[in-house]
Amino acid sequence: MSNLVGKKGPFSLILVLPFLLMVLSFSQHTWAAEKFAMKPSDPCKRLVLFYHDILYQEGDDLANATSASATNHTKLGGDFQFGRLVIFDDPVTLDRNLHSTPVARAQGFYFYDKKTDYNAWMTYTLVFNSTHYKGTLNIMGADLMGVKTRDLSVVGGTGDFFMARGIATIMTDAVEGIKYFRLKMDIKLYECY
Amino acid sequence: MSNLVGKKGPFSLILVLPFLLMVLSFSQHTWAAEKFAMKPSDPCKRLVLFYHDILYQEGDDLANATSASATNHTKLGGDFQFGRLVIFDDPVTLDRNLHSTPVARAQGFYFYDKKTDYNAWMTYTLVFNSTHYKGTLNIMGADLMGVKTRDLSVVGGTGDFFMARGIATIMTDAVEGIKYFRLKMDIKLYECY
Amino acid sequence: MSNLVGKKGPFSLILVLPFLLMVLSFSQHTWAAEKFAMKPSDPCKRLVLFYHDILYQEGDDLANATSASATNHTKLGGDFQFGRLVIFDDPVTLDRNLHSTPVARAQGFYFYDKKTDYNAWMTYTLVFNSTHYKGTLNIMGADLMGVKTRDLSVVGGTGDFFMARGIATIMTDAVEGIKYFRLKMDIKLYECY
Repeated sequence: MSNLVGKKGPFSLILVLPFLLMVLSFSQHTWAAEKFAMKPSDPCKRLVLFYHDILYQEGDDLANATSASATNHTKLGGDFQFGRLVIFDDPVTLDRNLHSTPVARAQGFYFYDKKTDYNAWMTYTLVFNSTHYKGTLNIMGADLMGVKTRDLSVVGGTGDFFMARGIATIMTDAVEGIKYFRLKMDIKLYECY
Repeated sequence: MSNLVGKKGPFSLILVLPFLLMVLSFSQHTWAAEKFAMKPSDPCKRLVLFYHDILYQEGDDLANATSASATNHTKLGGDFQFGRLVIFDDPVTLDRNLHSTPVARAQGFYFYDKKTDYNAWMTYTLVFNSTHYKGTLNIMGADLMGVKTRDLSVVGGTGDFFMARGIATIMTDAVEGIKYFRLKMDIKLYECY
Repeated sequence: MSNLVGKKGPFSLILVLPFLLMVLSFSQHTWAAEKFAMKPSDPCKRLVLFYHDILYQEGDDLANATSASATNHTKLGGDFQFGRLVIFDDPVTLDRNLHSTPVARAQGFYFYDKKTDYNAWMTYTLVFNSTHYKGTLNIMGADLMGVKTRDLSVVGGTGDFFMARGIATIMTDAVEGIKYFRLKMDIKLYECY
């Protein structure tokens, strides 16, 4: 084959050029494959985190509370708090321990929205400011509390999570009345830049 | 040509390889073309749905209501309800009939935000749980009520709508005072996984 | 080389075909490269805008105000307004002058969410309706007021901004008590259709 290339200059160029172009072409494909993970089972980045919400109520110690009701429930659902909107700045930890050093804050709100059962809708920003990560992830969706695991959308990210998209699967990990609850968040990014 | 291949082994490999690579390359392109529909006129998935909102007001029958005001209007716009925030869990049907079996719930909120006219902003999750679809679509945007059709963004999806993005074109389909209104939602997805 | 092609018909086809396919392949790549700008430093579209918020307070002139509180602060943070939710319909201009002709309206809300400092979360739609642009951009994220510049996510767009995504970098450009503030928004889109 070296004989072939050596003898027939222009001809060999024709043969080699496609391969050069192929290399270029494939390097771009590789990038695309990295950017977009196509299968739900195969995220390009994954984080498991715990979210702790301590709701302030009349007479509580202000120091411990991390969230407060901006509105009361409406007449549509006193039993299940329909209409109560809660604003939070909650610690997010790597394990179940409320007192572990937070790796992020979850800032946002949730509200109850069902007449016949507990059900909520929520949106929040995970604000990371640690040695591991700096940046934010923006999340929204229905918190179908009657379902064991429910999926929220990760609709954008900034900093280390520049332009990210994905799914945040949440599950209630602990609950103490309406005073404290803990969510496990399994965050799977499928678009990573 | 079989003669050519038969005789010149290494040479034929050089000729055939690009084609094999091409096949690979094109199958990936095909995927990309399927995932991302590029023209507004050509969505990869489309759903036409009707959204029914029955706002609770003092003295109303609680049983029929599907939404309630979490805040009252502010002094900035009593005439056009500036500042009134309404939380809803509304039935979504395939036709205009409020009493048709819902194919989804729309859970979220809207608020009025204009001093000089009716105008709103809204965000909600379409929660599907039928034989046709299971999963959610997350939607947000300005509801420019003075315009016949207005576009909201579909910013994410889960389940059967895993990672979806698109446009929800809405139009007011019926209105009875501020007690009932019906929106026609023409949901066009342009990113389908 | 013309000799080569002239004599060996089928063979030359084999050589030329890959190049034809290459051209097709590359034109598609070019499209992909245009749609997705990969580097934070290299957006596919950029807009620098100024956002003016004039908060209504008891006794103020209603005519000037562009926003109003839908809820009061909670007991969790009177000093830093924890829980106050403000709904706005704010003018957006090309320069710092509040009285310049707006190129867009920003419609949405923000709320304060920190016990120990001023900090907010916000989401809004930029509604463009000028000779330059018609359409909307939907934006959300944490407004970390203690940080000089902070990034929000542009999670969707409509009209001239059909399906756009990107980052809105905001910075406080002026502030007069809690009555008026101006944000500089540096909007960089990285996904342009």
